[in-house]
Amino acid sequence: MNVKERIEKLRNLMRERNIEAYIVPSSDPHQSEYVAEHYTARAFISGFTGSAGTAVITLKEAGLWTDGRYFLQAENELKGTGVTLFRMGESGVPTIEAFLRDSLSKGSKVGFDGKVISVDYFRSLKNVLDSKDFSYAINEDLINEVWSDRPEKPTTEVILHDIKYTGKSREEKLSEVVSEMKAVGADYYVISGLDDIAWLFNIRGRDVECNPLTIAYAVVTENKNYLFIDDRKVSSEVKEELEKANVELRPYDSIVNFVANITEGTVLVDPSKTNTWVYDAIKVKTVEAMDITTRLKAVKNEVEIKNVRNAMVRDGAAMVKFINWIKKTIKTRTITEIEAADKLEAFRREGDNFYDLSFTTISAYKENAAVVHYHPTKTSFGTIKPESFYLIDSGAQYLDGTTDITRTLAMGQLTEEEKKDYTLVLKGMINLASQRFLYGTTGSNLDILARIPLWNAGMDYKHGTGHGIGFFLNVHEGPHRIAMVPNTVKLEKGMIMSDEPGVYKAGKHGIRIENLVTAQEDEKTEYGGQFMKFETLTLCPIDLEPIDVSLLTPEEKAWLNNYHKTVFGKLSSNLKGEDLEFLKLATREI
Amino acid sequence: MNVKERIEKLRNLMRERNIEAYIVPSSDPHQSEYVAEHYTARAFISGFTGSAGTAVITLKEAGLWTDGRYFLQAENELKGTGVTLFRMGESGVPTIEAFLRDSLSKGSKVGFDGKVISVDYFRSLKNVLDSKDFSYAINEDLINEVWSDRPEKPTTEVILHDIKYTGKSREEKLSEVVSEMKAVGADYYVISGLDDIAWLFNIRGRDVECNPLTIAYAVVTENKNYLFIDDRKVSSEVKEELEKANVELRPYDSIVNFVANITEGTVLVDPSKTNTWVYDAIKVKTVEAMDITTRLKAVKNEVEIKNVRNAMVRDGAAMVKFINWIKKTIKTRTITEIEAADKLEAFRREGDNFYDLSFTTISAYKENAAVVHYHPTKTSFGTIKPESFYLIDSGAQYLDGTTDITRTLAMGQLTEEEKKDYTLVLKGMINLASQRFLYGTTGSNLDILARIPLWNAGMDYKHGTGHGIGFFLNVHEGPHRIAMVPNTVKLEKGMIMSDEPGVYKAGKHGIRIENLVTAQEDEKTEYGGQFMKFETLTLCPIDLEPIDVSLLTPEEKAWLNNYHKTVFGKLSSNLKGEDLEFLKLATREI
Repeated sequence: MNVKERIEKLRNLMRERNIEAYIVPSSDPHQSEYVAEHYTARAFISGFTGSAGTAVITLKEAGLWTDGRYFLQAENELKGTGVTLFRMGESGVPTIEAFLRDSLSKGSKVGFDGKVISVDYFRSLKNVLDSKDFSYAINEDLINEVWSDRPEKPTTEVILHDIKYTGKSREEKLSEVVSEMKAVGADYYVISGLDDIAWLFNIRGRDVECNPLTIAYAVVTENKNYLFIDDRKVSSEVKEELEKANVELRPYDSIVNFVANITEGTVLVDPSKTNTWVYDAIKVKTVEAMDITTRLKAVKNEVEIKNVRNAMVRDGAAMVKFINWIKKTIKTRTITEIEAADKLEAFRREGDNFYDLSFTTISAYKENAAVVHYHPTKTSFGTIKPESFYLIDSGAQYLDGTTDITRTLAMGQLTEEEKKDYTLVLKGMINLASQRFLYGTTGSNLDILARIPLWNAGMDYKHGTGHGIGFFLNVHEGPHRIAMVPNTVKLEKGMIMSDEPGVYKAGKHGIRIENLVTAQEDEKTEYGGQFMKFETLTLCPIDLEPIDVSLLTPEEKAWLNNYHKTVFGKLSSNLKGEDLEFLKLATREI
Repeated sequence: MNVKERIEKLRNLMRERNIEAYIVPSSDPHQSEYVAEHYTARAFISGFTGSAGTAVITLKEAGLWTDGRYFLQAENELKGTGVTLFRMGESGVPTIEAFLRDSLSKGSKVGFDGKVISVDYFRSLKNVLDSKDFSYAINEDLINEVWSDRPEKPTTEVILHDIKYTGKSREEKLSEVVSEMKAVGADYYVISGLDDIAWLFNIRGRDVECNPLTIAYAVVTENKNYLFIDDRKVSSEVKEELEKANVELRPYDSIVNFVANITEGTVLVDPSKTNTWVYDAIKVKTVEAMDITTRLKAVKNEVEIKNVRNAMVRDGAAMVKFINWIKKTIKTRTITEIEAADKLEAFRREGDNFYDLSFTTISAYKENAAVVHYHPTKTSFGTIKPESFYLIDSGAQYLDGTTDITRTLAMGQLTEEEKKDYTLVLKGMINLASQRFLYGTTGSNLDILARIPLWNAGMDYKHGTGHGIGFFLNVHEGPHRIAMVPNTVKLEKGMIMSDEPGVYKAGKHGIRIENLVTAQEDEKTEYGGQFMKFETLTLCPIDLEPIDVSLLTPEEKAWLNNYHKTVFGKLSSNLKGEDLEFLKLATREI
């Protein structure tokens, strides 16, 4: 059955139920960024497989809304499907809400699967559509009826995450959460975010590729906690441990009956994470706020930070072996982007505590690296040659931390333009990493620091400078981030985030340099207050070959030399022979 | 009648009407920052005269909430009144909402004058208090019944603001507003902001000191516009001009009947500017958004910018005469802060198009300047001596523009610490003024640029770096500003704002250097996009004496020399004799 046929089948169901438009977003019931195959309904109905996008099917039209990162991919994948691409953000392109408002007649019925639409999203939709008196069919999972060979929900085993890694027991975390619930007057707290649940209960899984999660809902109360999960995933040992912390297991889908049966008290929900299916079942009063767990989990405790520092040694050693290998090999033969990615993965797998990659490796040669979210596939990949730049953006899940690093490597001769662009990106990365800032500063205040060297040269990168990152959890983790977009989250001691400016020149080259940093306390002064600083966690040489040293200030040179001294000091005992020789050379003073 | 007696009289009225708590904010019915004397109800009932603060009177307690700028002043003024000072932002100090929630019993009635409480404020209040089932007496102006000798509402004459200054007729402005109303589906648009109304109708007044405003409400519709105003303020000539633009005059307070009588269509209101008295009278559907006029007025057109450039020449010449005078005079005798402020005002009054000061002059010697909102009064002022720093922050209302400038001047010998602090403030000011930025950047992205030199030395200033400013309107004008606080307003070509970092050392000295800048277009590039830059509008020498040149980069020195060259070029033909000689010296190359 092709996309056209799927859409026709969907329309038949829509006609039967008087639904004029059906919305299919890319998320799962937990508003996850990456989803299990079972939840790729939007790809199923539209043919577009990118990670972000929403399909809207009306009885006459079919549209796919996605952003600039995916225009090329979507154009290709939508060919012959009859689905129109709506390029979000381009002038004259309507939003989904405007499209629905303007193309449906008054009083139409709009349908969707309430499990995959958040309360926040539904409210913003309703806000725009209210003037047309639309009605909504909120719990119609029509895709399920069309999708006969839909993959099952994943059932990977739940593992316990040891306190030697987490630094805090589930009992301690639960008691912190309960005291914050009391402060806002909540008796029940419904948690939907998969990484929030994994963090709170110190459990992990493999339900979502590269994200060590198990699909579940949770409810916390002062005296008892509930984990709504497919019990085939939970061994008796894990169950026992959870029971010690007053965690009772319930069937996954029974969450909705559970909340429907709450007859008194107040329920705390995060409307950006809770789906409408669960929310609408709540009969009592609610308080709304950002998940308590999201705030608590973002601030890594000292045990977690210490663990990440250790994981970084293993991750950095793998990176050095890889860089040595690729720099040496490219002198003798070409290498495919896939081979390079696999080689790095193999080095990483040798390290202790390795669990998985943290995302699909971006292994991109020359102009391929100018496509920000490019990654090679088995059927479509580039070949690395002994010239220009090769960019590798990769990371791993270790039991003791999540990593994410980008290096752009000279594969041979470079042009002056390549060298200049590389050096400006490096300056931006250092400028952010080395700036002290007052406590209270947010990522939107700091973002500009990484852009200034590029702006002064008339360049920019069309992505944020940094994202938060989990501890043996999601590689993208809020609530903090470093971006121009307004963000009210203060950078707290123990938060980890990336620092990754870049330059992308279509058809030419793409350059990005990424380290992970953690906010830590600096001095407290009389006329300033509590200052903060970044500690760089990532340990891996930054390629010196492409640097135009004349563009660096003495301070930038000192930062780089000092960083390389640290890298050598921490990695040298984990490398030997040729790799150690290479590390020495790669971390030399300039 | 003293404050204690006033509060007792108020409590009697509260008891009569079963009101357990009465809230008195500092605003007028238009949410103005500065208010006419008639609206100083909070000062009347609490004794605290600062510009920001809210009094809450319960049957047992009386409290005054204000922020850090006013702690000292409030402590003094509240002595003997029985009013407790609640230091906002300090740990353990409850917000007004928390105070009411925790000190009143369930089902209590809270009262206030709905004319001076905005829709937004009431909602946030209600949100916290809802759990206690409070009721509200929304339109009880009890203060009016206590305040027997309350000053009348001002009735200053309305003047027309000529199109040679405004660059746009009221007809053009109204038609732009109407087309934006249509885009959001609004048939009526209620405007409460006094500067919004002045801008839209090209009218000015003197109802509020230093703010060239006339107190009024307005309603815009496609075919007819209404100005709700005391008609004693409007001459027949002004009335005629307004009528040409389809503006009909109505009695000021009749706004509430007008909106109550709208029986169909949709009304647009800005909930942050509209008071609950007006809002609650609306019976039809509303759309809520930031005032259209606020957005339009912030972007100065080219005629306005040209006018401001001219006004700056006059303002700068007055400043040069003043600086020459004070630098010369202090060598022979001491000067009071009041005398200095008056002297500058006299120089400003000599200039064409002078209308008023734009705010009360901050004339502050040495440690007085460390109090950010200090200004001398006739009964309390400092004396300037021939050493350390004198800070003057002042501005004027001209028919062709509003000015606001701060200079910190060496009065004699300076310490090394004073020189260093001054130079770091200057570096911050230049760093922001000289940075190009990509279109889309907001003031919260840029704020850090002015702080970095201070942060690197362990210092900070506890205020925003810059505020928007009106065109012959309020000296503080939104929606843009340059501050760490998140702000979503992109800096548009033609917006004007201040750039004013500082250092404040209690008991020692206060330093601030302030120029006004306007955002203008810079080049558009292939790999960046549309860049923007700041043009500095203020024309006045920056005192060179305190600069520690060794702390300036070559770029900063070049910026300063170039700025002084411009200042000399623009001001020299407006000065003569000794003043011209002084200008030459003060703008010399370093």
